[in-house]
Amino acid sequence: MAYRETEKMRQRKAQARQRIIDCTFECVAEGGFRSARITRIAGLAGVATGTIYRHFESREDLFAEVFRLATQREVNKVAEALTTTGNATIRLEAALRQFAERALRGPMMAWSLIAEPVDPKVEEERLAYRKAYADLFEQAILEGIDEGCIPDQNARQSSTCLVGAIAESLVGPLSPTQSGQASRNLKDNNDLLVGTIIRFCMQGLTGTRR
Amino acid sequence: MAYRETEKMRQRKAQARQRIIDCTFECVAEGGFRSARITRIAGLAGVATGTIYRHFESREDLFAEVFRLATQREVNKVAEALTTTGNATIRLEAALRQFAERALRGPMMAWSLIAEPVDPKVEEERLAYRKAYADLFEQAILEGIDEGCIPDQNARQSSTCLVGAIAESLVGPLSPTQSGQASRNLKDNNDLLVGTIIRFCMQGLTGTRR
Repeated sequence: MAYRETEKMRQRKAQARQRIIDCTFECVAEGGFRSARITRIAGLAGVATGTIYRHFESREDLFAEVFRLATQREVNKVAEALTTTGNATIRLEAALRQFAERALRGPMMAWSLIAEPVDPKVEEERLAYRKAYADLFEQAILEGIDEGCIPDQNARQSSTCLVGAIAESLVGPLSPTQSGQASRNLKDNNDLLVGTIIRFCMQGLTGTRR
Repeated sequence: MAYRETEKMRQRKAQARQRIIDCTFECVAEGGFRSARITRIAGLAGVATGTIYRHFESREDLFAEVFRLATQREVNKVAEALTTTGNATIRLEAALRQFAERALRGPMMAWSLIAEPVDPKVEEERLAYRKAYADLFEQAILEGIDEGCIPDQNARQSSTCLVGAIAESLVGPLSPTQSGQASRNLKDNNDLLVGTIIRFCMQGLTGTRR
């Protein structure tokens, strides 16, 4: 009996934790980390603010966890795109497109993950995740060099160039302060932007005009 | 007499402020923002810690000011390199080289300016300064399009690709956790790194194999 009780409590605890994470995610997707206040998250999750601090040591720890989960999802999507059929340049282009298009479809969340000034704990996660993207790109570049569709180069260094180019070129367009754009032209603008980023990156890798 | 007194006090105040800034700069160049403790800075500057808070509202404000001054110096160096004689591709290459080589010569300060996880106030400055670099590159790209040495493209977007590529590709090599590198090979490694970054960036811009 005692064991079952504990199991049930554990489940409840896990569910509350998940609800807090989901609601934080919702707040960040809506207005960034800055606007995700603990009282608001607690209200959405239907728990007392004190409950949040029983699950997470601090607001920063909660944010770091949400950052990790949200970014891991994006990393997985990029990894998935890299399994596209075709040679390494086709796979890399699909991965870059995936990254950029997903970001532009969820601009506030993407802004928060890529560039929003946040607590150092989140910044630490950001550095780690940039490495995760670079690892994926590096692998694909090495495959491309093997396949002969990408000239020989330091794949590690080129992979970080890719990560930097795509992330930085999205910062401005994703920035909430630029959201006054005419939404009618938004899709066209986004397509042009994605095209420009991909061209720069693929030219950078291959030295072949596109 | 009263006026002179005030003038003298003003001068003293300005000198103390400058000394605090200089000592903070020294601390950051040595161990990053994280290791720049107020007590240490006060000790170096020969003032009481309370004096620091008479000049700066908070540690974060002091850091933001030092960040601004240090980054503006780097921006000026890049701007200077862009006045090199030659067409826009030569000028841009000189600017990228200037950025990368200066960073590698002062790796801890560069790490702190480019990537060290710091307070949101410093992160805000970082975003602003990335724009400053992009503005410089954009101007040079536009000139290159005019001169005919760079193919027509969205210069704004390409400029942000350049900023991202060069900054991100330096993050790993500048990171204090990677400083165990054999120093004998350091110069060769750095030259190779700078070469790779410049090749990626210039190929990205021009689509011409280098």
